[in-house]
Amino acid sequence: MPTSLVTGGAGFIGSHVAEHLLRMGHRVLVLDDLSGGDAANVPAGAAFVAGSVCDVALVDSLFADWRFDYVYHLAAYAAEGLSHFIKRYNYNNNVLGSLNLINAAVNAETVRCFVFTSSIAVYGNAASPLTEDVSPTPIDPYGIAKYTVEQELAVTHEMFGLPYVIFRPHNVYGERQNIGDRYRNVVGIFMNQTLRDEPCTVFGDGEQTRAFSYIDDVAMPIADVVNQSQAYNQIFNIGGDIPYSLNQLAAAVSEVMGVPLRVEHMPARVEVTHAYADHRKVRSVLGIDSSPVGLEEGLRRMAAWARQHGPQEPSVFTEIEIPRNMPPSWQALVSGPV
Amino acid sequence: MPTSLVTGGAGFIGSHVAEHLLRMGHRVLVLDDLSGGDAANVPAGAAFVAGSVCDVALVDSLFADWRFDYVYHLAAYAAEGLSHFIKRYNYNNNVLGSLNLINAAVNAETVRCFVFTSSIAVYGNAASPLTEDVSPTPIDPYGIAKYTVEQELAVTHEMFGLPYVIFRPHNVYGERQNIGDRYRNVVGIFMNQTLRDEPCTVFGDGEQTRAFSYIDDVAMPIADVVNQSQAYNQIFNIGGDIPYSLNQLAAAVSEVMGVPLRVEHMPARVEVTHAYADHRKVRSVLGIDSSPVGLEEGLRRMAAWARQHGPQEPSVFTEIEIPRNMPPSWQALVSGPV
Repeated sequence: MPTSLVTGGAGFIGSHVAEHLLRMGHRVLVLDDLSGGDAANVPAGAAFVAGSVCDVALVDSLFADWRFDYVYHLAAYAAEGLSHFIKRYNYNNNVLGSLNLINAAVNAETVRCFVFTSSIAVYGNAASPLTEDVSPTPIDPYGIAKYTVEQELAVTHEMFGLPYVIFRPHNVYGERQNIGDRYRNVVGIFMNQTLRDEPCTVFGDGEQTRAFSYIDDVAMPIADVVNQSQAYNQIFNIGGDIPYSLNQLAAAVSEVMGVPLRVEHMPARVEVTHAYADHRKVRSVLGIDSSPVGLEEGLRRMAAWARQHGPQEPSVFTEIEIPRNMPPSWQALVSGPV
Repeated sequence: MPTSLVTGGAGFIGSHVAEHLLRMGHRVLVLDDLSGGDAANVPAGAAFVAGSVCDVALVDSLFADWRFDYVYHLAAYAAEGLSHFIKRYNYNNNVLGSLNLINAAVNAETVRCFVFTSSIAVYGNAASPLTEDVSPTPIDPYGIAKYTVEQELAVTHEMFGLPYVIFRPHNVYGERQNIGDRYRNVVGIFMNQTLRDEPCTVFGDGEQTRAFSYIDDVAMPIADVVNQSQAYNQIFNIGGDIPYSLNQLAAAVSEVMGVPLRVEHMPARVEVTHAYADHRKVRSVLGIDSSPVGLEEGLRRMAAWARQHGPQEPSVFTEIEIPRNMPPSWQALVSGPV
């Protein structure tokens, strides 16, 4: 029975990956600091340790005790737009935390594959459809941090032989998403706003486009990849194919929630205008032949869960490092520099 | 009178930059944690604070008190080959430390230019002669960390308007180099070994080539660049033009030191085989029309200083994070993992 570590396993994508791993017969340990996740998300049958990937002593002791075969590193604070204003927090969590796991995985000598969720954010303003061979030019600290860890995995493989697989998912949505985080996950934000009888807030004209990815289309291939050695030491885009504008997304969310469409436009912020990824590589190498779940169907499933789960009080990120040039709607939330 | 911060100003390149800035009429504060530097290197006339760029409270208070016009960020642990084995240390010092300065510079709103010394290490195995438009593909954690900070400066300029200049120096040598660090600075290592009546140690066959850069050819343009606004928000290679093999370097060092050549070959390690940079851009944009100091002349000047300074007891880096796959000569120095 293989043993797997899932960091961020009390979060959205991580809890789904952990669930698939249990079905695959793995022994699973979830490590999550509950900064964005919820212990209730940890699937039954998985062990759970509340703690951070930044805690070196904890990470080292878990690797010593559990002798992991596989590491699934999904823990991250994935607030791309906010990352400009929390650079230190971003690099500490997303780079140094990852390094602690990489060090521990190399030293353990038991790890047969290190699976890392990077992000479409590494591509920055590159022209869509984005393919894996495009040279990354991220335009925010979150994307830079993800790219840094991608490079680390490559040199670690070269120097120490640690196998890895990197996924670059994008705009994932579905059951168990943290819909109370107002800085990330536009589908969750719209759904929470709708549940709270508020308008959907859109930065700019709403004509920016994204392809949205239903959770099952992302979490299952991530969990399964360790059994596909032909995928080792490679990078894969993963997720939905069809780009929608944010205005279209707001309309689709309102539709499945059965409420009239209401959109509030805020001043535009610095962000990529159009981004969607090519998925031929992941389909070909992993042999995926089913179509992704359509947006309407995926939203319907998520809406059923969200209604049951109820609206969330949106959280405020208070540890802002640079209070300048934030979107006014975020600026209003924080009292000032820490 | 402009006020400048020089991090790493008790170190080799930093102390020379600080010296040039004083000549240019700047008020200079040196911040250095003395991990590789020496307080005796801080030029007379500069203020000195012993402390680390990783100390957020200290960094923030210095920016508040001094209201810097210019930041010269040279502090780093620049041991490229060792960085594989001290990943956390590398990213903590070289990325998070840099982020603390970038945050503080943005928040201060007084900084007119942030000058950063990156490294030729960002190029990895790209084909020489290296030009600034080559897409970086670093092959070690040190190079990745430098590249991460380069990208951060670009997005920080985009988001907050902080002007920057990035230099990519290579193999700099000269007076005040720390010749007691056995993990970096091959010229210093050879000179110290010669002073200690030891053979020059070379990894592999010694036919790997580098272009060596005399300190004045690097430090003066770095100091002066803040007065050249046409160079702002750009990246420049800087240093010597002519590649030499390590065997040739060992011969040249022995020659100026007046001793017979003795070389001890160690097993090859993972490193770039040939690396030298194209400097047409820095000459054209900064208007440099003098030739770099030749290797023999530069070594002669450094040797005069080194003889006076005397041999150094080579230091041992004891905080090794991954004790596997190190060159045996380094392995022998450490007792084991920390």
